[in-house]
Amino acid sequence: MYLATAYVCGSFGLFLSVFMLIPMMADLLVGNNDWQAFLAAAVLVGTAAVLLMAATRRAMPPFSLRFGFLLVNGVWATGSLVAAVPLMLSTQGLSFTDAMFESVSGMTSTGSTILSGLDSMPPGILLWRSLTQWFGGLGIIAMGLLLLPFLRVGGMHIYRMESSLQTDNPFSRFAEFAGALVSLYVGLTLACVLGYVATGMTLFDAVNHAMTTISTGGYSTHDASMGNYGNGTLLVSTLFMIAGALPFIALLKAAVTGNFRDALELQIPVLLSILAILSFIVALSAIAFTHGAPFDMFVAAAFNITSVVTTTGFASQDYTLWGPLAVSIFLLATFLGGAAGSTAGGIKTYRLIILFQSFRSALKELVYPNGIFTVRYGSMEVSDYVIRSVALFVAAFMGLLLFATIALGATGLDIVTAFTGALTALTNVGPGLGDIIGPAGNFSSLSDVAKWILILAMLLGRLEILTVLVLVSPTFWGR
Amino acid sequence: MYLATAYVCGSFGLFLSVFMLIPMMADLLVGNNDWQAFLAAAVLVGTAAVLLMAATRRAMPPFSLRFGFLLVNGVWATGSLVAAVPLMLSTQGLSFTDAMFESVSGMTSTGSTILSGLDSMPPGILLWRSLTQWFGGLGIIAMGLLLLPFLRVGGMHIYRMESSLQTDNPFSRFAEFAGALVSLYVGLTLACVLGYVATGMTLFDAVNHAMTTISTGGYSTHDASMGNYGNGTLLVSTLFMIAGALPFIALLKAAVTGNFRDALELQIPVLLSILAILSFIVALSAIAFTHGAPFDMFVAAAFNITSVVTTTGFASQDYTLWGPLAVSIFLLATFLGGAAGSTAGGIKTYRLIILFQSFRSALKELVYPNGIFTVRYGSMEVSDYVIRSVALFVAAFMGLLLFATIALGATGLDIVTAFTGALTALTNVGPGLGDIIGPAGNFSSLSDVAKWILILAMLLGRLEILTVLVLVSPTFWGR
Repeated sequence: MYLATAYVCGSFGLFLSVFMLIPMMADLLVGNNDWQAFLAAAVLVGTAAVLLMAATRRAMPPFSLRFGFLLVNGVWATGSLVAAVPLMLSTQGLSFTDAMFESVSGMTSTGSTILSGLDSMPPGILLWRSLTQWFGGLGIIAMGLLLLPFLRVGGMHIYRMESSLQTDNPFSRFAEFAGALVSLYVGLTLACVLGYVATGMTLFDAVNHAMTTISTGGYSTHDASMGNYGNGTLLVSTLFMIAGALPFIALLKAAVTGNFRDALELQIPVLLSILAILSFIVALSAIAFTHGAPFDMFVAAAFNITSVVTTTGFASQDYTLWGPLAVSIFLLATFLGGAAGSTAGGIKTYRLIILFQSFRSALKELVYPNGIFTVRYGSMEVSDYVIRSVALFVAAFMGLLLFATIALGATGLDIVTAFTGALTALTNVGPGLGDIIGPAGNFSSLSDVAKWILILAMLLGRLEILTVLVLVSPTFWGR
Repeated sequence: MYLATAYVCGSFGLFLSVFMLIPMMADLLVGNNDWQAFLAAAVLVGTAAVLLMAATRRAMPPFSLRFGFLLVNGVWATGSLVAAVPLMLSTQGLSFTDAMFESVSGMTSTGSTILSGLDSMPPGILLWRSLTQWFGGLGIIAMGLLLLPFLRVGGMHIYRMESSLQTDNPFSRFAEFAGALVSLYVGLTLACVLGYVATGMTLFDAVNHAMTTISTGGYSTHDASMGNYGNGTLLVSTLFMIAGALPFIALLKAAVTGNFRDALELQIPVLLSILAILSFIVALSAIAFTHGAPFDMFVAAAFNITSVVTTTGFASQDYTLWGPLAVSIFLLATFLGGAAGSTAGGIKTYRLIILFQSFRSALKELVYPNGIFTVRYGSMEVSDYVIRSVALFVAAFMGLLLFATIALGATGLDIVTAFTGALTALTNVGPGLGDIIGPAGNFSSLSDVAKWILILAMLLGRLEILTVLVLVSPTFWGR
């Protein structure tokens, strides 16, 4: 099982090393020396990967929960390490910590960056950052659709019944699903590229932003993020961020059957309502505080709220200047997250729905302790085990948030930076609040220790916390 | 049932009106005109209470859950309204909002204040504030011991088995318990008075601070709170704040049997460990940042951490100057709270224990889904229903915290003030962070709307959230 995990990690490393040739070619085209860094990284990683695969080649063991947990952690650890290699070798000369921060922020599609001067950076490194988010986003969808429901993490197993995966072996359906999933993901990305080009982006910018939009990652090719683009681009971006935050299983069904109504899952109307309500309130506050043109401010509010709720992390301007109401709504928005089975992070829409319904039924139970009040998710009955898992997830999230805040405080960061930094990393959003890591800020000035705390928080958040913590449980290794 | 609730509220009003004669006499002694305010308030409230009682006099209905919820909410609402009357009539001339803020902060033993110039204030109003906290503290212990386990709020019913209350009617044991409880509470208060006098307080200050220490309330007779007192006083205060935050059922057992070991409940060692660890870390940070004498800083750290964890809210100095690590630990400390069945608020020690144990067992369950991993609380098995209640309580707490933050943000408060203001009200701690409401600040400059949001949050927090929210559930009134 350990060898098989190592083999899969090796294959993934080999896969990534091949894709390093794309940024290599981009740098070759413009004559930038970074092509050597990507070539060297590809050779280095490719060789190591092939050696690892040769050493660990075995028949695949039967699926087991422990194997599943090892795979998920192994794949994300490998991706983060491998993606950091060209960043360290490039002319940007990133330290190991900075390279790991940037690659983990990419692979977890968080979007916090320690780089500045993006506008004048060679195309290779920009493309590589975008690619890491694009692969990270695809990976998280695959994990959410295929693995998490089996691993029963944080209440994800409610999707086990709903999806067509009725067997106990996720591998058997993998090939069948993978093709459709990748086609849809590539299709959405291409549509997003077209939308961006049509609204005024250069092809290079469009390709980069499309990859980081659909993956709700948020890396940009400009220091000002989306600040230089007009309303048309912001609306295209809003649309595709939402697409990235919707449950892909529903999108797949709609794409295959052509029947969008049947594929409508409860998370979709709830998420859209959340976005609409928060955007509306924030727009009113922004208009009151900036006296901007109402239409512009509505677009800006919709774009920036969508960016935070879908855990993308683009910013079109410094929304912390939109008044205290707007700022506190952005704080709330950072918790929420998109749908399960999407590229989004955060607490996630289905958990919010289950919590709300459980809470309603708990209130009824207080008055009628002998009554039976079923908690429903759409037409489905939610089991007590799922409710407990969801509520414990939120409690664990809170606990980790406070511990990460203290750890960041210990490095000398003020309370706003420490708290929202921990939050934005755990939810994979990207920007926090305050001067340092706010929407107009940058993570480069943080200490190395603070960066490693955030790296850990990004990985924990991306993999739904328990998937990672289970590895430190003695039960996992013992017996 | 509604009439019976009104009758109980009337009796409580009458009870409080009698106690208004104490501050009246204090003001008479020093010749301050406020004695008229207390006399007028006593007559007014007393008359209204007697009329209400006469109009609603009935045989007590049998105990029911709905009756229990009505009682708890009714008693706290009555206490808050009644306690505000002398504040409005006094020479301080508080507005209705300010008087309600101060009386709710008293009755919920929160300790946030809108008054300044305490040092030169007439003794009557100071005594009255202390008395509201003292009664509020006694009330919350009685509620925690006698009512909440029956109302099954937020997992409190685990204490139903443990306490000697085996009948289904909390009223039957009330008289038996009440005597012992009041004796212990009064005894602890007197001991605290002696301790304060012995370490240098005037008798008047000692009486006031003793009442607000044992109730973990935190009202002081000085604007500087405990800032003018030496290490001896701070240590006495720390000791009695801890006493106020321990489960009173255990203290009662120990007092009755003389056997402290048998009465030792799981919450006690856990709470003491939390206090010791946090104090130690904060002391190190404080020494590093202020270069104060180590012994002084250890005492100050223990005092201020104990003050926040036990949700008292005294401050001996502005601990936000003790470095970012200390500030983030104070933020964490604001969540924790003391033991269930004590005068403390917050999430509470037993919930932290149950969450931690549930989380451990959830991790094991992830690896062995067919294994049975019992969650234990001491020697007791914790039911799934309790785990779900506890986890849902924390999730509801989080949701309310974020909503209150947004509401406060809407009134124009910055994010630190809005977030920590909502937090400190919900947990009944007292001071928040930031210049306005931090340990060196005051709530008077907040808008009326912000004060009402905080009033609501203090009541929700004090009554364990669901006890209040159940009243807005249609199920409660309907059918």
